[in-house]
Amino acid sequence: MVAILAESSYGKTDVRLIRVSRFPDRHELQEWSINLQARGNFDEAYIRGDNRQLLPTDSMRNRIYAMAVGHRGETMELFGIRLLRQFFSEHPQVTQLTISFSGAFWEHIEAGGKPHRTAFYKKTGERRIARVSGTRHEVLIEAGIEGLAVLKTSDSRFEGFLHDRFTTLTESGDRILSTEIGAMWSYLSAEIDFDSSWQRARLVLLERFAAHQSASLQQTLHFLGSAVLEQNDAIGEISLSLPNRHCLRVDLSAFGLENDREVFVPVEAPSGLIEARLKRG
Amino acid sequence: MVAILAESSYGKTDVRLIRVSRFPDRHELQEWSINLQARGNFDEAYIRGDNRQLLPTDSMRNRIYAMAVGHRGETMELFGIRLLRQFFSEHPQVTQLTISFSGAFWEHIEAGGKPHRTAFYKKTGERRIARVSGTRHEVLIEAGIEGLAVLKTSDSRFEGFLHDRFTTLTESGDRILSTEIGAMWSYLSAEIDFDSSWQRARLVLLERFAAHQSASLQQTLHFLGSAVLEQNDAIGEISLSLPNRHCLRVDLSAFGLENDREVFVPVEAPSGLIEARLKRG
Amino acid sequence: MVAILAESSYGKTDVRLIRVSRFPDRHELQEWSINLQARGNFDEAYIRGDNRQLLPTDSMRNRIYAMAVGHRGETMELFGIRLLRQFFSEHPQVTQLTISFSGAFWEHIEAGGKPHRTAFYKKTGERRIARVSGTRHEVLIEAGIEGLAVLKTSDSRFEGFLHDRFTTLTESGDRILSTEIGAMWSYLSAEIDFDSSWQRARLVLLERFAAHQSASLQQTLHFLGSAVLEQNDAIGEISLSLPNRHCLRVDLSAFGLENDREVFVPVEAPSGLIEARLKRG
Amino acid sequence: MVAILAESSYGKTDVRLIRVSRFPDRHELQEWSINLQARGNFDEAYIRGDNRQLLPTDSMRNRIYAMAVGHRGETMELFGIRLLRQFFSEHPQVTQLTISFSGAFWEHIEAGGKPHRTAFYKKTGERRIARVSGTRHEVLIEAGIEGLAVLKTSDSRFEGFLHDRFTTLTESGDRILSTEIGAMWSYLSAEIDFDSSWQRARLVLLERFAAHQSASLQQTLHFLGSAVLEQNDAIGEISLSLPNRHCLRVDLSAFGLENDREVFVPVEAPSGLIEARLKRG
Repeated sequence: MVAILAESSYGKTDVRLIRVSRFPDRHELQEWSINLQARGNFDEAYIRGDNRQLLPTDSMRNRIYAMAVGHRGETMELFGIRLLRQFFSEHPQVTQLTISFSGAFWEHIEAGGKPHRTAFYKKTGERRIARVSGTRHEVLIEAGIEGLAVLKTSDSRFEGFLHDRFTTLTESGDRILSTEIGAMWSYLSAEIDFDSSWQRARLVLLERFAAHQSASLQQTLHFLGSAVLEQNDAIGEISLSLPNRHCLRVDLSAFGLENDREVFVPVEAPSGLIEARLKRG
Repeated sequence: MVAILAESSYGKTDVRLIRVSRFPDRHELQEWSINLQARGNFDEAYIRGDNRQLLPTDSMRNRIYAMAVGHRGETMELFGIRLLRQFFSEHPQVTQLTISFSGAFWEHIEAGGKPHRTAFYKKTGERRIARVSGTRHEVLIEAGIEGLAVLKTSDSRFEGFLHDRFTTLTESGDRILSTEIGAMWSYLSAEIDFDSSWQRARLVLLERFAAHQSASLQQTLHFLGSAVLEQNDAIGEISLSLPNRHCLRVDLSAFGLENDREVFVPVEAPSGLIEARLKRG
Repeated sequence: MVAILAESSYGKTDVRLIRVSRFPDRHELQEWSINLQARGNFDEAYIRGDNRQLLPTDSMRNRIYAMAVGHRGETMELFGIRLLRQFFSEHPQVTQLTISFSGAFWEHIEAGGKPHRTAFYKKTGERRIARVSGTRHEVLIEAGIEGLAVLKTSDSRFEGFLHDRFTTLTESGDRILSTEIGAMWSYLSAEIDFDSSWQRARLVLLERFAAHQSASLQQTLHFLGSAVLEQNDAIGEISLSLPNRHCLRVDLSAFGLENDREVFVPVEAPSGLIEARLKRG
Repeated sequence: MVAILAESSYGKTDVRLIRVSRFPDRHELQEWSINLQARGNFDEAYIRGDNRQLLPTDSMRNRIYAMAVGHRGETMELFGIRLLRQFFSEHPQVTQLTISFSGAFWEHIEAGGKPHRTAFYKKTGERRIARVSGTRHEVLIEAGIEGLAVLKTSDSRFEGFLHDRFTTLTESGDRILSTEIGAMWSYLSAEIDFDSSWQRARLVLLERFAAHQSASLQQTLHFLGSAVLEQNDAIGEISLSLPNRHCLRVDLSAFGLENDREVFVPVEAPSGLIEARLKRG
């Protein structure tokens, strides 16, 4: 028997960096973790231990750091495009690249009622994400958000669902709906303002989550995804992944107490998980 | 040989709850994790397996849920005081109680430029904490903050330090200073507005971190702690715990590039750790 | 514009259960986390909020618990096959199912030199994983391992690699090689002993990792994957994911000390990441 | 008002190192994370930003690495004692030191039925811990264990407990008992074999947990602690911290199924938490 190497890729994960953009009137701060994964002609390395075509992942990391100087305020997406192009131009043995970004949010500290020029705090647990991937001939640019925790205490019901022999859930006309929005969308063009596009998509997700009269998390997902496509012509597709973080009303009747949707237990596990991909019609 | 039971305590940890306060014009949301730990006469249970004085921790959890109804918008501190008093009044075998709170931050989603009445997002990775502890005769009320990540890109130096034979660190007149503020302070009175007191302390920590001309993280700690005591008469003591999250400038000279404090690697481990307790003089 | 629902799935994640198999001479213990994800005709729910075809994920969880009684010692794979078949037979609206398992390792405690009948300890951080997925017509059975941390202090070199303008890594004829084996393989048949097959694959991975004269982690991956295919006719394909957990020799020359491959810093991030899929030739 | 610096300490946390002891017939592997925290005369640094007595934490880390060469197979406890003495001898401004260790377990891989000389796997999620602390005049040596997850499926009951108005728990004559043993004990002497002492204590904890006819986790804690003191004259005190990882029997009666202690849900939160300190009588 001979094993066949059907696919392979390698690279560097979790290259962490902080970029300080020193503008005259203020500094700006970016904190990213970057993954770079390459495909290409590496069979000799895998099969025979011949490393002549194998660039160390250490060199990939060095390249990332080196490319991060001199481009004040650059977005993940533009950095990714530069990196991908430069990599292909110097490494003929590489045929496919995927560069992924995950970024933290640092905001200027408010001091005396206005943003301090050079002091920051980490605003939130959310992560802004982006992915630039492709070949020498075709590049896909995606962006998104992870860990945007949202919750609504009204305008959510779950009724009229299918019952099988294991169904014990009671219908609810007024439940808490809680999820952690994970979204990733693809851009139809590279000639856009990636920052404002991302900000607009995030705002739409938040506002529409708040506004929706939800019959299910499935419907809310579709409502969110449709709205992002509608509000943003540059986006071709969007995938959403919404865990249903169940909040259970505590039954206090054994203690002679009424709990009129006041005290809930947030359940860590299990979660529902609702996923879908929407594309422009 | 006989083993002596020198100390013991038991209770329930990580009782998670969400409280929805349904005001006419809006809902408010609190998410807490509560620990309750009791000391008292439990030696018969430990030594002889006689459970007659042993209240199940399950009953402690039920009590927490039951007490959470009917007190819209109550703070951690006031909830803790109520719980402690009620517990002592019903359980003579308990002599000491510690009730700890850790809370997440949920904010109203901005929709159409104003806060949505019933929709929320989790604002930040910070946690508001509180602890109510004591005996039938004396109660200590503490509050604080965990995980407030801050970073400054100027006004921080580290120079003139002690050298020993293992010192290789170079002096720096302009370094990044990054930490995650952990603070806990004690109140001199229970007759205060715990929310505004906490908000004021948090604001002082942020503003002073931004403003400080830092000669070391030790000095910054003292500066922050002193300011909290100065700005808030109700606070008697404050303990601060500040990890030094080192951000190392990447040396790109091997590639013919200058990195003028632009690209840094945030180091996960090890960290410095600076701690101190300040009290009113 | 109309958004098109290109794909969707939903289900329950992280359904945790402990199964105790009470044999006459001993108990056996399994601890699993199960994910169940379904595809099918749910467009009405997503698009119009019509829940009539939507089975609550709560009912999926109940079914998992209900099916877990009465099958002492059953493997993940057989449980998954039963669950998938039963689900399809009762739910015509479902067209595709994926059921994933992640299991902890509990071993009998050795007491007085032999395994205690009913007392266990958690042996390791590894997870045994399995996945049963497919349609009414075709089912794929996969199994694997996650988090198997291994390290070798000899027989690993990394030399003769490609250099580019960012390469600073020095060649090494004797380095530490450390990784956390992640592997997933597919079975060609459902008529095998899944436990012994899994045990054999795990043993091959460990023994071959130990034995290999490694020229790179890429080569080690190929060596491990080929061996699993060779030693186990029931396996058709194997995917391996190997992070390179770099261990850097500490340079103590500044202190007049030699560090002859004795003291290393294990680096949390970044890691190399080497992945490949091998199939039977 | 003047703030008074009531206490302070600083140091380095999470200094990670791997030590390879190259014996002629085999290698041995240790992986430690070390914290070093110092107290002393640092008030000028905190209060006035005068760093002349302030040794950088970076130098502390360098010292740890430098001291780790040349002592093959040394235990945490002996390394800690050496480090503490050397630190005090070179740093008069330091008056108190605490050095804490947390170690992973690496075992030789079994290959062809015997331990491979130079290949290892990480055996378990447990951590061996130790702490050496004190002044120039007095040193305390402690050792212990963290994260030793154990579970018993018989010989555990919880009955005859106190009821209050919030008690809903039913008595159980046969429940699952599951915990994660955390233990720390102090040694009466530094002239002992720390490895065999630790191994013996761990064995006693496991065997006694298995053997105990448990009336409560409180009683099991006392039983374990007493046994460690009894079996090991070198140990003066022991503190145990035992979370009660509740495993709830799933009620399947709604589906016409009996669940005779077969399927349980392991509950992540909340846990009971049982703690005590036992000393030699």
